[in-house]
Amino acid sequence: MTSNWKEGQASLIALDWGTSALRAYLMNFDGAVLETRSSDCGIQNLAKPGGAGFEKAFSDIRDGWPAGLPVIAGGMVGSAQGWKEAPYIDCPADFTQLADASVHVTTETGEQVVIAPGMIYRPDHGQPDVMRGEEIQIAGALAQNPTLGVNTVFLLPGTHSKWVRVSQGRVVDFDTYMTGELFSVLKRHSILGRLMSETPSKGEAAGRAFEKGLAVSAADPDRLQHLLFGVRTHGLAGDLAGNVLSDYLSGLLIGNEIAASLARRTDPGVPLVLIGEQALCRRYQEALQVFGCPPADYIDNASASGLYLVACKAGLIKAA
Amino acid sequence: MTSNWKEGQASLIALDWGTSALRAYLMNFDGAVLETRSSDCGIQNLAKPGGAGFEKAFSDIRDGWPAGLPVIAGGMVGSAQGWKEAPYIDCPADFTQLADASVHVTTETGEQVVIAPGMIYRPDHGQPDVMRGEEIQIAGALAQNPTLGVNTVFLLPGTHSKWVRVSQGRVVDFDTYMTGELFSVLKRHSILGRLMSETPSKGEAAGRAFEKGLAVSAADPDRLQHLLFGVRTHGLAGDLAGNVLSDYLSGLLIGNEIAASLARRTDPGVPLVLIGEQALCRRYQEALQVFGCPPADYIDNASASGLYLVACKAGLIKAA
Repeated sequence: MTSNWKEGQASLIALDWGTSALRAYLMNFDGAVLETRSSDCGIQNLAKPGGAGFEKAFSDIRDGWPAGLPVIAGGMVGSAQGWKEAPYIDCPADFTQLADASVHVTTETGEQVVIAPGMIYRPDHGQPDVMRGEEIQIAGALAQNPTLGVNTVFLLPGTHSKWVRVSQGRVVDFDTYMTGELFSVLKRHSILGRLMSETPSKGEAAGRAFEKGLAVSAADPDRLQHLLFGVRTHGLAGDLAGNVLSDYLSGLLIGNEIAASLARRTDPGVPLVLIGEQALCRRYQEALQVFGCPPADYIDNASASGLYLVACKAGLIKAA
Repeated sequence: MTSNWKEGQASLIALDWGTSALRAYLMNFDGAVLETRSSDCGIQNLAKPGGAGFEKAFSDIRDGWPAGLPVIAGGMVGSAQGWKEAPYIDCPADFTQLADASVHVTTETGEQVVIAPGMIYRPDHGQPDVMRGEEIQIAGALAQNPTLGVNTVFLLPGTHSKWVRVSQGRVVDFDTYMTGELFSVLKRHSILGRLMSETPSKGEAAGRAFEKGLAVSAADPDRLQHLLFGVRTHGLAGDLAGNVLSDYLSGLLIGNEIAASLARRTDPGVPLVLIGEQALCRRYQEALQVFGCPPADYIDNASASGLYLVACKAGLIKAA
């Protein structure tokens, strides 16, 4: 927790508060990060919604930072299981509307924490879709590169992978795929994990197994429940070694997601931009190229910039 | 364990030995069941492959039955994790070939247990597929109704649902779908189980949720990973109550399986026949009708008849 900043520079505390982790940024007046801290006080590790656990987690992580700064928070902290619920706002929506729908809590020491809501998309037909946290990443991407706001599809892979359409600075609509969670539960809790080695291959064979999974999914996009059983039977038959079976499973699931999503793109000319964890985004970049997409740009974690943007829109800080 | 049979009637001991349970049938010379016993000594509950655990489980379950009878066994007992491995035989194959490929173990008391193999299907392109136990059920169905051997698709729903094509008395090919296991792991281990009530509805609302799941899957068969997230979002949005969410999930998965399988039927005129647990088969019968199929016949557990047929083919007993 060393710091090279001076007290007068600190202008905002921004909290990226998700399911498993809490990350805090001390930022200056024009959105540069002066110091980053993190803890495992994600909302699933805190005793109960709205309880004193949130106040303590916040107090601990900002310990030693100047008092009296505006505080902005985003992510699962605003869910029904969070510190205070900030109801979803409907898409299409822009980030001014997002900021306007924020709620706030006041701590025992009198600090006000502004909590941004998530977004909900309710199509005329089909299922509603929700996100909390991804919209902050997108705000950050737009803050870093405003031209992306014109017309972009953002792809945020992860536990619940999101494909988010942005046009004219507004989040128009989005779809979720359970790719990451399916990978995790099938590997840990289903028969598919049984033949997998504890130490997966890092070599070319892993890459080939991943690409085979992509190709198989692309050829039979409506048959995932059958193809999944192939993780077992290719292992039993010795076609794929135990140390590449998780890569094959990953290829099947990511391939299925991409095939379904590309089949529904209304305008294939709109660029795709990835946001998220680097290794996973690389995997998606590779997969998208197998599906014939042009190389997709990649943006690392953009939550600090996104929270800064929302803080500006909420009037907590005056944009530089 | 009361019994009304006389010692002279007993002609065969048949063991349906699966992953979670062991079922034993004492049968007479023409295949009628004199007594049925079961234990939880499925192969996953026995200490190690080939160990004394199998011998003890067998000795316990046949306790008091006449000595010197032929013994036939089928199911996971013949897997690499079973009593003794009976390598898969390749499809197409008939039940004489199955019987010919049996292996045997001799117990300490000198009893010989004949273990039938499973079947493997290796298509020219695509993944291999395997079964152990389902082929015995099909043998039983054919023993009960030989006309089904001419041309039938057997559907055996369950953890790993099988669609098995039989023609001219031979198992031609088959496909597995992980429907039952996906349902179980998603309900128990994923976010989808969170909003589900502990006591599911038994009423009409459950039936409507199941049918909604079927319809949604039928409309978007290539988009399962997105539709699955709808179990959560319909729950969050209040469109579906917590006590029908598991029915909706079941409808999505069964609908996806049926849509994929029907799309690949080479001859839609061949009748479909269900084999398996009654409540689950009813669910599939209902689903098949929603998909426009004619009413499918249903056969209850047929493993005793199937084991008897294989015992006859193996020369263990002379068919009546």
